[in-house]
Amino acid sequence: MSAEEDIKKDLHYMQFALEEAKQAYKEKEIPIGAIIVCKDRIIARAHNLTERLHDVTAHAEMQAITIAANELGGKYLEGCTLYVTVEPCIMCAGALGWSQIKRIVFGCIDDKRGYHTYAPKALHPKANIIGGIMENECKELMLRFFKERR
Amino acid sequence: MSAEEDIKKDLHYMQFALEEAKQAYKEKEIPIGAIIVCKDRIIARAHNLTERLHDVTAHAEMQAITIAANELGGKYLEGCTLYVTVEPCIMCAGALGWSQIKRIVFGCIDDKRGYHTYAPKALHPKANIIGGIMENECKELMLRFFKERR
Repeated sequence: MSAEEDIKKDLHYMQFALEEAKQAYKEKEIPIGAIIVCKDRIIARAHNLTERLHDVTAHAEMQAITIAANELGGKYLEGCTLYVTVEPCIMCAGALGWSQIKRIVFGCIDDKRGYHTYAPKALHPKANIIGGIMENECKELMLRFFKERR
Repeated sequence: MSAEEDIKKDLHYMQFALEEAKQAYKEKEIPIGAIIVCKDRIIARAHNLTERLHDVTAHAEMQAITIAANELGGKYLEGCTLYVTVEPCIMCAGALGWSQIKRIVFGCIDDKRGYHTYAPKALHPKANIIGGIMENECKELMLRFFKERR
């Protein structure tokens, strides 16, 4: 597949992750959404639910990993791609590392809690990481959320 | 409380975490157990269930965090202590960081996947970390498990 087709596909799938993030926003959760795609099929969709569930582990990516593994009937997600609107945190990057997922696409970076600063080796050594897909939309939603709470 | 009383209490509670690890061993799971104590009461007990649940996120600590938050009715665990038989991994350390738990007691270190090597700043900056409680028992159980699978 050409680089152009890759980007087109990534933009396509990131919209679904962004839809999840918007749903989180409506529910007054930090607006982050994630989906997992396997063989051109969305096998998991999730958004942050830490407030509703009173559970710090209920990040979008964590739920998506659990849903995808359930769907596939096995715990490893080698052949899948995760799309997430914001750079994963340390916890989620650690979980993605365990899952052996090899492709991760995110929207905007997270300066304060992103894995890249605090646990750069958390992901699988062969994982392919792409950042900046629909960056502005993903970031704008986060900024709006935090601005309203100030 | 004196340092001696602290150690005595830590040894007491670590036995419950070790019991959980032994249960994991019986279930052919990597034998790691965790408990969370709040005001001298065990509010969560869990052991690794990654095989049974086909879920890389089902580490003992992750489950214990979710159970404890449910028990307390809130997502922050500031006043609690986590006891875990093996040093937490990146994912679990990230989750413990989010939970704002301030005291973590573990048995043996994990050279290969322990948070200390890969994400030393994952935990809350004010967290108090104590390693080496019942170290031999915790380590021996892990070594036995992996030896049997070689």
